[in-house]
Amino acid sequence: MRNRRTLFIHLSILFLFVLNGFGQEHPGLILTNGGVEKIHASLGKVPLFDKTLMKVREEVDHEIELGVIVPEPKDYSGGYSHERHKRNFLTLQKAGLLFQISKDEKYAQYIKDALYAYAEMYPELPLHPQTRSYARGKIFWQCLNDSNWLVYVSQAYDCIYDWLSDEEVEYLNTTLFRPFADFLSVENPQFFDRIHNHSTWGNVAVGMIGLVMDDQELIDRALYGSGSDDFDPSQKDNDGGLIRIPDQKTGFLANLDEPFSPDGYYTEGPYYQRYAMYPFMIFAEALENKRPELKIFEYKDGVLLKAVYALLNLTDADGEFYAINDAQKGMSYYSRELVSAVNIAYHFGGRDPQLLSIANLQNKVILDDSGLSVAKGIANGLAEPFQKQSVILTDGPQGDEGGLAVLRSSIEDTEVNILFKFAAQGLSHGHFDKLSYSLYIDGEEVVQDYGLARFVNIEQKGGGNYLKENKTWAKQTVAHNTLVQDRTSHFKGDFETGNQHHSDLYFADIDNPEAQVVSALEKNAYPGTTMHRTMALISSEELELPFVLDVLHYEAETHHNYELPFYYLGQLISTNLEKNSDSDLKVLGKSYGYQHLWKEGTGKTREDKAQLTWLKGNRFHSLTSAVQDGDEFILGRIGANDPDFNLRRDPVWIQRRVDSDSGVFVSVIETHGSYDPVSEIASNAYSSVKSLEVIHSDENYTAIDIHFKSGKHHKVLLSLKDSSSDKQHSLEIKGQTYTWSGPYIIN
Amino acid sequence: MRNRRTLFIHLSILFLFVLNGFGQEHPGLILTNGGVEKIHASLGKVPLFDKTLMKVREEVDHEIELGVIVPEPKDYSGGYSHERHKRNFLTLQKAGLLFQISKDEKYAQYIKDALYAYAEMYPELPLHPQTRSYARGKIFWQCLNDSNWLVYVSQAYDCIYDWLSDEEVEYLNTTLFRPFADFLSVENPQFFDRIHNHSTWGNVAVGMIGLVMDDQELIDRALYGSGSDDFDPSQKDNDGGLIRIPDQKTGFLANLDEPFSPDGYYTEGPYYQRYAMYPFMIFAEALENKRPELKIFEYKDGVLLKAVYALLNLTDADGEFYAINDAQKGMSYYSRELVSAVNIAYHFGGRDPQLLSIANLQNKVILDDSGLSVAKGIANGLAEPFQKQSVILTDGPQGDEGGLAVLRSSIEDTEVNILFKFAAQGLSHGHFDKLSYSLYIDGEEVVQDYGLARFVNIEQKGGGNYLKENKTWAKQTVAHNTLVQDRTSHFKGDFETGNQHHSDLYFADIDNPEAQVVSALEKNAYPGTTMHRTMALISSEELELPFVLDVLHYEAETHHNYELPFYYLGQLISTNLEKNSDSDLKVLGKSYGYQHLWKEGTGKTREDKAQLTWLKGNRFHSLTSAVQDGDEFILGRIGANDPDFNLRRDPVWIQRRVDSDSGVFVSVIETHGSYDPVSEIASNAYSSVKSLEVIHSDENYTAIDIHFKSGKHHKVLLSLKDSSSDKQHSLEIKGQTYTWSGPYIIN
Repeated sequence: MRNRRTLFIHLSILFLFVLNGFGQEHPGLILTNGGVEKIHASLGKVPLFDKTLMKVREEVDHEIELGVIVPEPKDYSGGYSHERHKRNFLTLQKAGLLFQISKDEKYAQYIKDALYAYAEMYPELPLHPQTRSYARGKIFWQCLNDSNWLVYVSQAYDCIYDWLSDEEVEYLNTTLFRPFADFLSVENPQFFDRIHNHSTWGNVAVGMIGLVMDDQELIDRALYGSGSDDFDPSQKDNDGGLIRIPDQKTGFLANLDEPFSPDGYYTEGPYYQRYAMYPFMIFAEALENKRPELKIFEYKDGVLLKAVYALLNLTDADGEFYAINDAQKGMSYYSRELVSAVNIAYHFGGRDPQLLSIANLQNKVILDDSGLSVAKGIANGLAEPFQKQSVILTDGPQGDEGGLAVLRSSIEDTEVNILFKFAAQGLSHGHFDKLSYSLYIDGEEVVQDYGLARFVNIEQKGGGNYLKENKTWAKQTVAHNTLVQDRTSHFKGDFETGNQHHSDLYFADIDNPEAQVVSALEKNAYPGTTMHRTMALISSEELELPFVLDVLHYEAETHHNYELPFYYLGQLISTNLEKNSDSDLKVLGKSYGYQHLWKEGTGKTREDKAQLTWLKGNRFHSLTSAVQDGDEFILGRIGANDPDFNLRRDPVWIQRRVDSDSGVFVSVIETHGSYDPVSEIASNAYSSVKSLEVIHSDENYTAIDIHFKSGKHHKVLLSLKDSSSDKQHSLEIKGQTYTWSGPYIIN
Repeated sequence: MRNRRTLFIHLSILFLFVLNGFGQEHPGLILTNGGVEKIHASLGKVPLFDKTLMKVREEVDHEIELGVIVPEPKDYSGGYSHERHKRNFLTLQKAGLLFQISKDEKYAQYIKDALYAYAEMYPELPLHPQTRSYARGKIFWQCLNDSNWLVYVSQAYDCIYDWLSDEEVEYLNTTLFRPFADFLSVENPQFFDRIHNHSTWGNVAVGMIGLVMDDQELIDRALYGSGSDDFDPSQKDNDGGLIRIPDQKTGFLANLDEPFSPDGYYTEGPYYQRYAMYPFMIFAEALENKRPELKIFEYKDGVLLKAVYALLNLTDADGEFYAINDAQKGMSYYSRELVSAVNIAYHFGGRDPQLLSIANLQNKVILDDSGLSVAKGIANGLAEPFQKQSVILTDGPQGDEGGLAVLRSSIEDTEVNILFKFAAQGLSHGHFDKLSYSLYIDGEEVVQDYGLARFVNIEQKGGGNYLKENKTWAKQTVAHNTLVQDRTSHFKGDFETGNQHHSDLYFADIDNPEAQVVSALEKNAYPGTTMHRTMALISSEELELPFVLDVLHYEAETHHNYELPFYYLGQLISTNLEKNSDSDLKVLGKSYGYQHLWKEGTGKTREDKAQLTWLKGNRFHSLTSAVQDGDEFILGRIGANDPDFNLRRDPVWIQRRVDSDSGVFVSVIETHGSYDPVSEIASNAYSSVKSLEVIHSDENYTAIDIHFKSGKHHKVLLSLKDSSSDKQHSLEIKGQTYTWSGPYIIN
């Protein structure tokens, strides 16, 4: 403490001390005095902690050499002022930790200087000059980023709070932090009082600084919302999401109640769950340290800890998140948000040794009590491999709004993952992709979800923000591996309608490694039409890897046209189509995303199956689809009406069926063989499927015959109307009667 | 020796013994008895050799378990019979080595059984049923692959020669090997008597079996050609290459004389040089062992050893060959051909410790005397890093037919490579790409050469052979990063014409790491037009990496239209064009490759520079081009008129200038900044070039001003008509006089 408090203090200052948390311990948010002592005792003895510390120190020392730089706010993300302020808050948080760990006052001084620079600017700061946001910030173009700033800077402030003089604390509290917190909350209720990741950041920003200042009003505001009722129920955010539903609870706890399902799945999808995990977990840690009586980690049956496991299970073999809804590809559990989430979940959540293996891969820890726990656990050899599971994750606050399935299989170190989505809309970041799926082999996308249309933080691309193609393309149904009726998106692409509905699990049986099966229903995307998709991952001994069976049954009140897109990724090797291709490329349609697809060719086959083989990641893959008379195939490519080249020129294969009221689309996907460009040897380059036949299809049952070239044969029978496991079924096909119990049987 | 020779032999058999090499040592081709002894003494003591041995043994044991499989010849490459026979010869060669090393007779027996199976089939074998080749084989669809077979199987035969009885040897020689060698040579002179990698394989096949059988007639035929004059001077091979020029020398030595330049560059390019290196080096090894008096490694001033170094210098940071001419991407110094080449070059070529580091990366050796040398060298810690050089490699038998330049720069482990091509046609595998170049950053292609249009050994793609798009697209000028006049390919795409010409080096100065400059001329590609391109890799302290300066001056007798394609690879981030784009895609032209390009958009700029920034491999790259009034830009994409999806849908940026008789295209290419999809941080995402101006251009001089945003400025002055280094130049620009000596100056 640079300034010892004495008894000779002015009364007004005493009064401020009380308000400012006299008697409160600092640091106390994510570093505690006890933790700091333990860290001191461990320095030089815990390799991963020491390594992280050295790296962070280098990084922060470099910034300190540059000096404090607080530019005038001007740019969108990717631009100079945005990136500079972002670097500032990330650096300040680290400098706080370094001050506590090293006791080197240069870090405290750097923080103080920066805070003073911000305090000097803040009172006169107008709204940010960029106007695109529904909730403009002051330092950044949106309140969201201002909240990021406060979440991180609160931690820095906590670390030097006791080092500052009382006058300095008072100055910063009244000039910078309290106005900052008020701006983000009571002055922007359309931002603060929502169920949304934006609001979570806002809530946590206010809560964190409230805990530092021991300002109960701010803490309550953070936990329970501002109480404002001043909003327009038709107002939307920049992504087209509704601001708020009347009578909705708000605040941090409501944001735990609502978007998280009891399984810990966050309804916006893993990319945003990752983003939101930082404020959720860091505030939970701070609350556990400062307000342990809240038992935040036990809240909603331990949903925060479950959320960490849900996220880890929503990654492919490389640790990258499945790219559903608005999601930028490449984001992974190596992100800083997951480093802190895994550290905090380990420290506060029962010290699961499997989490240590993830931390080991991350190869860094956070420099606080929980990071020390993790680094010590690893140093003591406690780490165990993280066992990813096939899982069903429910969606919705009560877990009754559909969900996601991850089917996994691992054969000789080759990992096959299916992500099958039968969830709720996913708030404003959701896509119109009911019953869609994607397929990953060893971390390679083989059948892709497009993800978002945005280049996050690349300024040249629309300020690094969402591009208009996110709405016109990425969210539309035709951009996904699911059924499109009459070239119209699910719910006609209307968010409010989509937000009122969700798909439903029909049944799931994922415990048998020989055949993992999930089946789900969607009855609202196209009024009057039921879509029922069953996906299975089936081992068959003569195949190198389990194959995917995809059965999509539809039943409509009237006749419609259907298209089932299939976004294979890689080089087309062969098809069995008789193809037509134009030398000019025509656009496929005018709306619902079709305006972004070119038609490279069309084709039909006289066989009763259509086959596509492609090469990706040095492996061959084949799609075999049962063909019904009149079915046509379109070979398309993304990129039409995209003058700014915002979209990737990826290919699509579309099965088209016209004028049909009910029927079924059935496909088998295999991964087979390999190609090595060095030895130039191609092995097992052909599909093993000899025939794929729908041998029965009505409103009650679908029956399928799969014949492999080896002679091996599978028969799959599905009951569409009763999923109870003890129900007896009997079905006559070509004079033979099959009986079984439960919703399916695979022979 | 299973069968001891006795004195009680029939005279006719004695006679055959003499013919068959009685008294010759076996093995003696690549394994020698002395080598075998050394190997025995080293077993268990030389890790890389032992490791390779173990792996090869597993592989061969697995094949032996399957038994000898000699199917009826039927398929093109990629098909079953092709791949099976290919696996057979690769396995037999290894089994031979294993027999000698382990003395386990199961390997000898396996070889004998296989040879007998072939001997039984061979005499009745008709030409292969697939008819596409100009030189159909018997076991494979082309003599080339039959030659591969014999090159490998000769080695196996050598290893069991003494183990076989005399009768067995006689039977195999007369029934299988001599007829096989005759078929490949005297029966197929159009294949055997050429200057071509095909013929090299044929020569070596005949030579290897000749050495095993000690059949001097075959050895001479291999070395000097069959002497046949029976050919049609207008006949071409399947790639459109001429079979032969009248009075041309043929045979192995002629194939060393002609396609290799004195620097060891093989005129077809590195992909085929790699392919040819196996027969060249393995036969050289065999000759050195069996006919040391030939001093084959000293032939043509040691060209074989130089060729190995040339090849290693023609690889990017990942060891992959630059994809010029017909070349499949991904081929690298990890190929089996380079393993043997590096091993043999080390053993017979002065034991250069730098070669050991390449062998170390290859992580395997060949199981013979030279592989043992290498493995021992590594075990003894002798390996030194291989220092890749900026190099000028001449082309042509006398080194006076142009060449290639590789400009390299390495800053903080980031490797920048330019491959600039001013070579001869490259025989039938050459492309019409005079003065083209490509750019690699750390092994990532940033400005690509398309390579070939073929999926080697993937049967579904045209039997794994060259696709028609190789001719209609990949060879055409517009498929390359070089100037196209009037939408016509160089030499009008006519091979015979192209084959008579070559570009010429104007000057090269590659020893100054601050600015490496190469300049070359092409006067024949378009009669009446001179193209003169100068490429420089220039360090500038305010840039992260050296930038590329590209100056392409043209001078024609009459007015023409020009297009300069630029095959950037990656995601377009931004341009400064005012763009037009159609919603339907039109094909760009009707011929010379233009029929395979779609026009995605066109644009102009009112600035005096055009700029394109793109993202590839987590780095940003920018092209800045000086713009002259009327210049237009086309954003194109490969893939039109490609119903079988044989072409990659890669983008192109084309600068178009119409109705011009002389002028200059000037561009700067920078690699800058980075993007990390995990931290989502974009750094240095903008070009640093503020302006790029041609301040003087006439038939004698080009002068260029480059201004960076930092204020730094470079002036580049080029003399176009005199490249002598001591020539004094004086040029007045805007009232100021510049004087310098030599062909260029960069300030």
